[in-house]
Amino acid sequence: MISLDQIKVPLDVPQSKRDDYKRVFFEVTQGSGRLMLMAGDQKVEHLNDDFYGEGIAADDANPEHLFKIASHARIGAFATQLGLIARYAMDYSNIRYVVKLNSKTHLVKTSQRDPLSLLWLDFEQLDYFLQAKSIPIVGVGYTIYPGSEFEPQMLKEAARLVFEAHQRGLLVIIWAYPRGKAVINETDPHLIAGAAGLAACLGADFVKVNPPRVKDGDPHVALKEAVAAAGRTRLICAGGKEVGVKDFLTQLHGQIHVGGTSGNATGRNIHQKPLAEAIAFCNAISAITFDGVSVEEAFALYKKS
Amino acid sequence: MISLDQIKVPLDVPQSKRDDYKRVFFEVTQGSGRLMLMAGDQKVEHLNDDFYGEGIAADDANPEHLFKIASHARIGAFATQLGLIARYAMDYSNIRYVVKLNSKTHLVKTSQRDPLSLLWLDFEQLDYFLQAKSIPIVGVGYTIYPGSEFEPQMLKEAARLVFEAHQRGLLVIIWAYPRGKAVINETDPHLIAGAAGLAACLGADFVKVNPPRVKDGDPHVALKEAVAAAGRTRLICAGGKEVGVKDFLTQLHGQIHVGGTSGNATGRNIHQKPLAEAIAFCNAISAITFDGVSVEEAFALYKKS
Amino acid sequence: MISLDQIKVPLDVPQSKRDDYKRVFFEVTQGSGRLMLMAGDQKVEHLNDDFYGEGIAADDANPEHLFKIASHARIGAFATQLGLIARYAMDYSNIRYVVKLNSKTHLVKTSQRDPLSLLWLDFEQLDYFLQAKSIPIVGVGYTIYPGSEFEPQMLKEAARLVFEAHQRGLLVIIWAYPRGKAVINETDPHLIAGAAGLAACLGADFVKVNPPRVKDGDPHVALKEAVAAAGRTRLICAGGKEVGVKDFLTQLHGQIHVGGTSGNATGRNIHQKPLAEAIAFCNAISAITFDGVSVEEAFALYKKS
Amino acid sequence: MISLDQIKVPLDVPQSKRDDYKRVFFEVTQGSGRLMLMAGDQKVEHLNDDFYGEGIAADDANPEHLFKIASHARIGAFATQLGLIARYAMDYSNIRYVVKLNSKTHLVKTSQRDPLSLLWLDFEQLDYFLQAKSIPIVGVGYTIYPGSEFEPQMLKEAARLVFEAHQRGLLVIIWAYPRGKAVINETDPHLIAGAAGLAACLGADFVKVNPPRVKDGDPHVALKEAVAAAGRTRLICAGGKEVGVKDFLTQLHGQIHVGGTSGNATGRNIHQKPLAEAIAFCNAISAITFDGVSVEEAFALYKKS
Amino acid sequence: MISLDQIKVPLDVPQSKRDDYKRVFFEVTQGSGRLMLMAGDQKVEHLNDDFYGEGIAADDANPEHLFKIASHARIGAFATQLGLIARYAMDYSNIRYVVKLNSKTHLVKTSQRDPLSLLWLDFEQLDYFLQAKSIPIVGVGYTIYPGSEFEPQMLKEAARLVFEAHQRGLLVIIWAYPRGKAVINETDPHLIAGAAGLAACLGADFVKVNPPRVKDGDPHVALKEAVAAAGRTRLICAGGKEVGVKDFLTQLHGQIHVGGTSGNATGRNIHQKPLAEAIAFCNAISAITFDGVSVEEAFALYKKS
Repeated sequence: MISLDQIKVPLDVPQSKRDDYKRVFFEVTQGSGRLMLMAGDQKVEHLNDDFYGEGIAADDANPEHLFKIASHARIGAFATQLGLIARYAMDYSNIRYVVKLNSKTHLVKTSQRDPLSLLWLDFEQLDYFLQAKSIPIVGVGYTIYPGSEFEPQMLKEAARLVFEAHQRGLLVIIWAYPRGKAVINETDPHLIAGAAGLAACLGADFVKVNPPRVKDGDPHVALKEAVAAAGRTRLICAGGKEVGVKDFLTQLHGQIHVGGTSGNATGRNIHQKPLAEAIAFCNAISAITFDGVSVEEAFALYKKS
Repeated sequence: MISLDQIKVPLDVPQSKRDDYKRVFFEVTQGSGRLMLMAGDQKVEHLNDDFYGEGIAADDANPEHLFKIASHARIGAFATQLGLIARYAMDYSNIRYVVKLNSKTHLVKTSQRDPLSLLWLDFEQLDYFLQAKSIPIVGVGYTIYPGSEFEPQMLKEAARLVFEAHQRGLLVIIWAYPRGKAVINETDPHLIAGAAGLAACLGADFVKVNPPRVKDGDPHVALKEAVAAAGRTRLICAGGKEVGVKDFLTQLHGQIHVGGTSGNATGRNIHQKPLAEAIAFCNAISAITFDGVSVEEAFALYKKS
Repeated sequence: MISLDQIKVPLDVPQSKRDDYKRVFFEVTQGSGRLMLMAGDQKVEHLNDDFYGEGIAADDANPEHLFKIASHARIGAFATQLGLIARYAMDYSNIRYVVKLNSKTHLVKTSQRDPLSLLWLDFEQLDYFLQAKSIPIVGVGYTIYPGSEFEPQMLKEAARLVFEAHQRGLLVIIWAYPRGKAVINETDPHLIAGAAGLAACLGADFVKVNPPRVKDGDPHVALKEAVAAAGRTRLICAGGKEVGVKDFLTQLHGQIHVGGTSGNATGRNIHQKPLAEAIAFCNAISAITFDGVSVEEAFALYKKS
Repeated sequence: MISLDQIKVPLDVPQSKRDDYKRVFFEVTQGSGRLMLMAGDQKVEHLNDDFYGEGIAADDANPEHLFKIASHARIGAFATQLGLIARYAMDYSNIRYVVKLNSKTHLVKTSQRDPLSLLWLDFEQLDYFLQAKSIPIVGVGYTIYPGSEFEPQMLKEAARLVFEAHQRGLLVIIWAYPRGKAVINETDPHLIAGAAGLAACLGADFVKVNPPRVKDGDPHVALKEAVAAAGRTRLICAGGKEVGVKDFLTQLHGQIHVGGTSGNATGRNIHQKPLAEAIAFCNAISAITFDGVSVEEAFALYKKS
Repeated sequence: MISLDQIKVPLDVPQSKRDDYKRVFFEVTQGSGRLMLMAGDQKVEHLNDDFYGEGIAADDANPEHLFKIASHARIGAFATQLGLIARYAMDYSNIRYVVKLNSKTHLVKTSQRDPLSLLWLDFEQLDYFLQAKSIPIVGVGYTIYPGSEFEPQMLKEAARLVFEAHQRGLLVIIWAYPRGKAVINETDPHLIAGAAGLAACLGADFVKVNPPRVKDGDPHVALKEAVAAAGRTRLICAGGKEVGVKDFLTQLHGQIHVGGTSGNATGRNIHQKPLAEAIAFCNAISAITFDGVSVEEAFALYKKS
């Protein structure tokens, strides 16, 4: 557990916003210094693939499912696009929102054209909501694709976004996915460490990476290089494709306790479940992330649902 | 029927514009929650192909035909480009206008270059008309092409447009057409559901999609995935190429009552008819959309003309 | 003949500028509703090809030739680039100027790269001259190339330009030339009608098109589709390459009285003649355009010179 | 010789700056109406190729050489980049500076990619120096490449630059070099005339072109078409590669007295000489340009050094 | 040694900032006129390649290592990205920071696409820190790639950055690396001299180049052309890949005393060492750079650690 005083506030947060920054950091990590982010930007990133089809709960067809989970489960924050938030947050005002500020579909593959994801909105628009206090926004998210031919545009947007978010006392989570024709192996541990260090140079509070894959040895150990490279920027792992609950929790526990990560960002594994199960699963994830419980304890929490 | 109180106002509509938003929503749906949009942006999108040639009424050669129909028929709103509106609205001030803010011609095919349609005008220009109250503008329209290599630019413009329109109490209709070299089947139901969900994340009030096509089974059933994916964003179907009146009305009825759509956006099927017939056809469409009449009743309305 | 009261002012002209708009419309059409535009933008569009060489009067080598003609002949307005106007208008202040706001050379052919012509100046710069009243500016011109891969950029610039020009009470003439690798036949009547309708949707006052070509039948009849498609936007024909005077006047007469066009925009056919002849030729064109005289009467006027 | 009263001030020069414009025009032409421009932008355009190597004086290795010449010789003005000026002008404050506002290196050849040279600085930055009066700036320079695929961007920048420069009473010199894959023969007299006319349409005060080459006949005669096409914009010839002094002066004399040019812009031929010789050579050029002396008289001046 | 009075202040530094400029120049050169820059931008430029792996000290895995060295060693200034500075400078406030304002990864190779590195932040953002005085910023850095197809964009950004930095009394260091498909030999002495001269025309205070390579002869002699071409802009050499300490110091001594350079910018050779050794190595470099000691004396300083 960390106290408010121990939170290091980056220097682009002005004096008047330091307390806000500390408070939101404390809240989304529930005093643990670790983040449990419910990631819900897939309706753009993967279109309807993650929300409808075999093995996906019928609940998930409706976007409101995301808000119901985020509202009733124990999570750190919920990330999705602002347009969607603006239509549901009047009914789900107890959620801490992370606004995902850029997004693209998966239709154009890297073999055709390198990925480019541009800011949908600026802080000019975000300020409206911050001033109206109509949505409890705690942070913003942005995806960069290091290795894309469009990397320069995205690094430029990301660097400015970090500055502007910090100026308002908001947290920044950078999704850092090496991708492009120049990238041979997206899950190479050394490359992921590079992406984590890049996010640190951009000034992110958290960097979300895909967990590295290794041929031999413990993949969680392979995370250590990235955690070190990120320095004071905290590294969280993406949840990825649906796996079994026990396997998921085991992996999460290993990422945190072996790899040294500061939490996770999970989407599909949560919302493809029916509501009650999704809530219980979130709670189990949070128990590991925030409370440091064992896999068994977390799984029991899930099973109770 | 819905009452004004039941209309959910998105959070990017400021307090001072909530009543305006409700009023225009109520008006264009005539209290039904469903939209009948007369779509008249084809003079750019298809150049003169939809207005002159075999099987097209001579009336349609002159753009004023569109305004005459929109003025004399029962419709929810009429969508076209601002330049055209600015030349006719002084004589057709009883129409509710939706300004189509981006448009392109169909000359460059996807096989040559992926589609890009850019904003013609910003709200800076639109504000002139809103302040002068010289044109009864109720909303704006914008086309996105998910799957185009230029998708990032269009998503950026669309997201900002939604925010700016809502700030002024205006409705937003997103034309969402998956298109580009990466798109194999533009009318795949799952892809259309994805496009609908994307429009929801952009914050659209209505999303206009092409009706999906299926090899087997009821195409209206195939719409359900998209209607669900759109959540609180209401889905309307494009009218498409000219078909017989009875077939058209039957299809519309099925889209609404089987598929669960919230109306339609029809262009060619309306304006390629002579004036009186076009008006009667609009009225028949509106009777199904707004009043929930049967196909037979609607067809009778049309026949009376 | 039309009266000032009959001029329909588009709604993007503010109340305070309606009289200015009517006045300039009346002046450039000399009350006929038809425009005689002396087009002099070729020093950029065709470099020196139209000004020097076999069959071209020596007078034409010097750009001042254009101003001398425009000053001494009866014309509606003279269109050229602002940089040139700024160097000669102090000596030719009786000319009504149309500022051609975009221009490109003909060096890069469509086979190499689709055409793109960008705004040279904004209204920010134009306002200087409007306020200083140092140049009698009555309108602006802009070329669009529908079918070019750069069409989106040009439609965007054109739409804004129409709005800004009308805000200042100025007329807008759109040069609409379908061109690009996607365009098979630039002079297809149906395509030209499409271009005319596009200019109408942009809100142009006049659209300048190349006269369509037909294999069989009267080419002037083929113009009717375009004139209809343009609606309240008035269509004028480009003069094109040099032809004999009688042929030219016959063609012009047919365009107006058979095709229903609202005048013409002529460059090379005028300025490639020696000064006195060029002036007489302008006067002949104007007599047909403004006064409705016969080809014979107009030709007699020319012969007198 | 011309008097101040005979100088025609373009209409984009405001009333309050007319005297400044006349004064700088008079000074850089020393009352002759002809310009002797020492061109020193090659450190970017040709990197170190013109400053170091066989046949180049050792003095030329140091950029200060340029300032020494410009300060001690009789010239009209000295053109180079602002960054360099800002480091030397405190010691060479008697020079009249023309700020070359765009520049590129010669590394990327046309066969690889058509040339693009973008503005380095805007008038926003230039105004700082104009207000501080720390540098005696008399004009600005800009290179356009008609026929490049990037021509539209450069014409846009050039047109604005002319307006902004004239607003401040400064002169504009356009370097006009047809170049790009579409340009077969860069020194074709007719093409160069086209480029000169284009610069006139942009509103340049002087246009610098490469002297045309002809297979047969007098190359200076071939200049006449360009001089005529430029109209009131005065044409000056680039000096080009190093040639013998006598040949250079003979050529210059012919350009002025046969071709009708208004001076020259010379770089390498001047600065590749040792200081004293370079100064003498400038003085010889200026004697021909400003004073109308014969080649022999000018050569004698040079020899005296 | 130079005195404050001898420092030549460029003319884009306003009167009110001249003392600041002199002070920072004096400080980072410690009165020697030569710069010892600790370059720490590699976490972006080379991702984690320089920080983790065989032969790299374990200390280097954590970005804080850079700050520890910079804080405890004798250096002129430390250059890295602002996002990183904003997270560490509260604990390392005795460092003089150079903010590296553009950066890219090395993932996309020149064979795929020419290099482009865009500004991450503008002075709008930098001013926040300058006003808050929370970070001791003494200068900014920017990389240009002459010969890249994207050269125009980078020259534009660089020229503005120099002006804006000088307006605030800050120093500018340009990293000038000829690179792109058009560049055959990046370490050709003549090309490097060209890059140095280009940086001078941009107005840089220091230009950082890669040391040239020669087949025969002394490579330090080959530097002289570049030092001369840079004029009043001072040239420093990049440290490059790790070499032995003695070799490094010998090379540095030769660059300064034979080549005439004004110091060095070293990264990997410093931070890949364990903390104590890295500090000692910095001190040895500084002794040569600032104090003019011999290689032996400097090496002894290093050995003492």
